[in-house]
Amino acid sequence: MNEVDVERVESAELQDPVLIEGLPGVGHVGKLAAEHLLDELDGTLVRRVYSDQFPPQVEVGDDGVAELTCAEFHAVETEGRDLLVLSGDHQAQSNEGHYELTDTFLDIAEEFGVSEVYALGGVPTGELIEEYDVLGAASNEDVVERLTDAGVEFRDSEPAGGIVGVSGLLLGLGGRRGHEAACLMGETSGYLVDPKSAQAVLEILQDVLGFEVDFGSLEERADEMEEVIGKIQEMEQQQNVPSDDDLRYIG
Amino acid sequence: MNEVDVERVESAELQDPVLIEGLPGVGHVGKLAAEHLLDELDGTLVRRVYSDQFPPQVEVGDDGVAELTCAEFHAVETEGRDLLVLSGDHQAQSNEGHYELTDTFLDIAEEFGVSEVYALGGVPTGELIEEYDVLGAASNEDVVERLTDAGVEFRDSEPAGGIVGVSGLLLGLGGRRGHEAACLMGETSGYLVDPKSAQAVLEILQDVLGFEVDFGSLEERADEMEEVIGKIQEMEQQQNVPSDDDLRYIG
Amino acid sequence: MNEVDVERVESAELQDPVLIEGLPGVGHVGKLAAEHLLDELDGTLVRRVYSDQFPPQVEVGDDGVAELTCAEFHAVETEGRDLLVLSGDHQAQSNEGHYELTDTFLDIAEEFGVSEVYALGGVPTGELIEEYDVLGAASNEDVVERLTDAGVEFRDSEPAGGIVGVSGLLLGLGGRRGHEAACLMGETSGYLVDPKSAQAVLEILQDVLGFEVDFGSLEERADEMEEVIGKIQEMEQQQNVPSDDDLRYIG
Amino acid sequence: MNEVDVERVESAELQDPVLIEGLPGVGHVGKLAAEHLLDELDGTLVRRVYSDQFPPQVEVGDDGVAELTCAEFHAVETEGRDLLVLSGDHQAQSNEGHYELTDTFLDIAEEFGVSEVYALGGVPTGELIEEYDVLGAASNEDVVERLTDAGVEFRDSEPAGGIVGVSGLLLGLGGRRGHEAACLMGETSGYLVDPKSAQAVLEILQDVLGFEVDFGSLEERADEMEEVIGKIQEMEQQQNVPSDDDLRYIG
Repeated sequence: MNEVDVERVESAELQDPVLIEGLPGVGHVGKLAAEHLLDELDGTLVRRVYSDQFPPQVEVGDDGVAELTCAEFHAVETEGRDLLVLSGDHQAQSNEGHYELTDTFLDIAEEFGVSEVYALGGVPTGELIEEYDVLGAASNEDVVERLTDAGVEFRDSEPAGGIVGVSGLLLGLGGRRGHEAACLMGETSGYLVDPKSAQAVLEILQDVLGFEVDFGSLEERADEMEEVIGKIQEMEQQQNVPSDDDLRYIG
Repeated sequence: MNEVDVERVESAELQDPVLIEGLPGVGHVGKLAAEHLLDELDGTLVRRVYSDQFPPQVEVGDDGVAELTCAEFHAVETEGRDLLVLSGDHQAQSNEGHYELTDTFLDIAEEFGVSEVYALGGVPTGELIEEYDVLGAASNEDVVERLTDAGVEFRDSEPAGGIVGVSGLLLGLGGRRGHEAACLMGETSGYLVDPKSAQAVLEILQDVLGFEVDFGSLEERADEMEEVIGKIQEMEQQQNVPSDDDLRYIG
Repeated sequence: MNEVDVERVESAELQDPVLIEGLPGVGHVGKLAAEHLLDELDGTLVRRVYSDQFPPQVEVGDDGVAELTCAEFHAVETEGRDLLVLSGDHQAQSNEGHYELTDTFLDIAEEFGVSEVYALGGVPTGELIEEYDVLGAASNEDVVERLTDAGVEFRDSEPAGGIVGVSGLLLGLGGRRGHEAACLMGETSGYLVDPKSAQAVLEILQDVLGFEVDFGSLEERADEMEEVIGKIQEMEQQQNVPSDDDLRYIG
Repeated sequence: MNEVDVERVESAELQDPVLIEGLPGVGHVGKLAAEHLLDELDGTLVRRVYSDQFPPQVEVGDDGVAELTCAEFHAVETEGRDLLVLSGDHQAQSNEGHYELTDTFLDIAEEFGVSEVYALGGVPTGELIEEYDVLGAASNEDVVERLTDAGVEFRDSEPAGGIVGVSGLLLGLGGRRGHEAACLMGETSGYLVDPKSAQAVLEILQDVLGFEVDFGSLEERADEMEEVIGKIQEMEQQQNVPSDDDLRYIG
């Protein structure tokens, strides 16, 4: 295997598609959103990307058959813009790996004619969220303007620590390649897998790209999480104030 | 030295051999199993693999002579299938190293005509084991079916965290190369070096590959471990409940 | 993107310029000093250096537009020596990265005709500073002598742990290339971002290189820090002796 | 700079020299021993080895002049065997770096005609030492025999964790290249810089290689350490039993 190995699974003709990325991250917001798109829309697996920058590992499926860790691209036609959806179970495991994989992802996207990139993710607030705002960052001011009109919030120099990982680099490296690129980051506590935040991000995307998906299954998952949160809050009241650690990543 | 350096120690003619891998891991199950095969069957050391992905270290033998850390391949003829046994004292020390070494191991295996791969290991249960089941994962459904018939258990999406390291990659990369590959994972507490779990794995292998080994020495070692466990349990009763840390890796 | 990617933003003709480096480090002394130079003097952005040795990240500006992490060179003409100022938000993230980036930085500097290098930084004393001395280290004895005359202190084998990162390597690798190179390290507690220490370093530089800058804004920032220190000292008196951790990096 | 950069400082003609390595490690035994040889015998600096596998750092000398971190080879003629002495302030900072640097060190040694290698170091016992034994490991049985005659102890499979770092690899890679290679490891508590252990190692070397050095300065340094130990033991008696941490690496 080479350092990065792109398996061409199928070909697909897409009309001026946009790249949607949803790899694991804060609140698993991006991953939930990308996977929900693939669950609800009819897509074709077109590329698998293997890399020694992913963990050295296989995932076992329901049939006992194991698959080498990879990232996947699905081609999806919608009633609005065509989509190329990038999903997977892992981020790169090193700095160099993030750069190398993002470059590969952009190469594949360009092969399908992509010139517009949306990296989906979450931004941690440290508090349980009432109203799910979506924070944005973009490669140029035109994109900022267009997304502001769609309801995305842009705040001075936020997120303060920058945007890290493949999402940040799709914006940074994509912008340097001349693409219109944006990160859409759903606000999320940061403590829990957050389907509501994923829905907020997808509602923006729907508006911008002109497609529609049903949110029933995400809402169900959100209800399950609500129950978890409810139980934690009950515990809080019974057992005095718990530390943040009690809440860390349940989902 | 190159990044990976394969020393050709001897040549051997094997008939359609299978690769058996047993490097260090959970409960040292794979390592114990591979080393027991080499102790009981008459094998020939055919290859040594040195790599800067192994720890920078020598091991000192009983004669004061030190050997550079490496992995070894032995050719073993049995009354059943011929075996190519891969053993050693170390896993790779980085993600990339795991990929690179596994590719090298598969290259060597193919040189000997291998098209079937068994990666041996343990799967931690967190509890002392009564009945030693062997959990499996495989590169395709035919292998799953064949091993199920031999008594291997396949459970939906288990182990949950995937299979990590050379064992996982032999399955993942081996499967991508078109080999029939499987991981056989003996259940083990995860706290102790576990000869009984190694025996359970080898009993499956015997059945599948048609060879037979004596288990006397493994059983002796298991009895020694039983004594250790007995003492720990005695201590538990005398001193209240100990933490898991008291049990961590005695062997 | 290559491992290191130099973007040629503009050209500039400088007369026998000196390289001034101020990347993040102890008390952010070097970074504050370099940025103050760029704020006060009229400079031109001439080069951006991108690298997979920087964190995989973008920084978001006030307009919501995000920029890929990089280091920047500005050409600055003064009434004294011309300057080539190297600044940025990050150090390299690995040993090899430090060496590779420093070599790139020196290549760029040589392209502009640099043969003299000043790496700016802080040296931690562990105590709040009354008088801000500037400690030096240099590539040869002539430089030591010249800087001693300008008020820089050179102390036997200090700093004891050597000088680490790009600053150290600009001196070490720069010296090996035949440049006159020096580190100028303002004393600083090590607990706080320290504008006064940055000013002490710049006052030496002014003297050595014959330019002048206004220190109003640095002094303002120093006053803000004084208030922070004042509050901490008040807290100390009220709450007994605090640990060093209470002081760690406020700024 | 390349990944490894060998600077040819001077040439030297040595008669069938042996390589003596003393880089930092347990109790700084090897480093103390190599530096004592260079202090007492008249040597010529012949090579400097720079590498991006060393820390990115300069060391500042008594004159304020800083030198890039490197390893050094000195050619030393004695009344016995000629020596090529390898010393320095740092080990490599990664696994691959240890392999790469050791290969470079052996290349340089071979350039000077070396076919015999002594890697000096310490082996931690966890207790203050009364009698300073020297433990050995070697590349073949002839060397074991020869060194046993000189008073070196060889113990079954000791040190149990193998020998790590450049010392271990000089033995392992040196042996693979056909050199007669040995590690000489002075017993040492592991808590303190240990000049007595260094002397024990050098006394063996003197005997084996037929040279003689004065131990006055090492003995002085040992006396200083005795005082430190005495004070610690006093503190122990006054303040009950201290933890091992109180003793960790004073020197």
